[in-house]
Amino acid sequence: MSKFVISVLVENKFGVLARVAGLFSARGFNIDSLAVGETEDPTVSRMTIVVEADERTLEQVKKQLNKLIDVIRVQDLTGGHYVDRELIMIKVKSEGAKVREKIVQAADSTGAEIIDVGKKFVIVEETGDEHKIKALIELLRPYGILEIARTGKIALQAEGNGK
Amino acid sequence: MSKFVISVLVENKFGVLARVAGLFSARGFNIDSLAVGETEDPTVSRMTIVVEADERTLEQVKKQLNKLIDVIRVQDLTGGHYVDRELIMIKVKSEGAKVREKIVQAADSTGAEIIDVGKKFVIVEETGDEHKIKALIELLRPYGILEIARTGKIALQAEGNGK
Repeated sequence: MSKFVISVLVENKFGVLARVAGLFSARGFNIDSLAVGETEDPTVSRMTIVVEADERTLEQVKKQLNKLIDVIRVQDLTGGHYVDRELIMIKVKSEGAKVREKIVQAADSTGAEIIDVGKKFVIVEETGDEHKIKALIELLRPYGILEIARTGKIALQAEGNGK
Repeated sequence: MSKFVISVLVENKFGVLARVAGLFSARGFNIDSLAVGETEDPTVSRMTIVVEADERTLEQVKKQLNKLIDVIRVQDLTGGHYVDRELIMIKVKSEGAKVREKIVQAADSTGAEIIDVGKKFVIVEETGDEHKIKALIELLRPYGILEIARTGKIALQAEGNGK
């Protein structure tokens, strides 16, 4: 079992999302992450799916995806050059000015942003690859993480000279 | 029909995603965006769903969601205070140093980042709310947009003093 990054262009119609997700779950594949958003054409959405699978079964799923009427294109980015990013918001426990100041400093040190300050929490936002996101979670964990909202990974084929 | 932002905590098991998406599509609701990612507890994922629906039918769907065995909690963030963000990567046509310089300047002016430079394109990344993302797309459209990958919206309940 390895991790694959699959990008699927689909017609932006109801039911498509459930059908595509269903194809993976019917095989018992675990979807690590999934992100769906409109493309430059509002009638077309791009789904980015990260899935743990064995290569042979995945090939079958890709063939089945291609047969779905609302699927426009299936791209397997695994192995090639691509850039990928995800986004996270973390609600961190923060009581008192001293603790808040420490969290703000920790966030600053990684380039994360504070986007909401409550009486008992702050919300920190960061964009990056999986490793950067993981490092931020570990940095903030000691303060007490109350909630996390995280997008799935999005990816685009690149020329490999990105950062 | 109005737009709703629903946050659903689910067990991180295969099939859950397809079942939750299926509940919405069975009602004919169009899912505007969907983002799924792990939370602080790797056995639990948070799905953020933006959906166009009428309030009464949505209430029924929320009840059905709560009955699903792998659904831990359903939160309707609509109407309350919350912060929301999404992430986009745009592959823009860029041939020649002059055009590239213009795109870099345009990206800089909005706080977006260049994350890959190819011979015939650059990839621009930005995080923000819907309006900021839309403005960036319009800014880059004249250069020729080749591909877009966009996460769904993620949202967390906040105290309303965010930015």
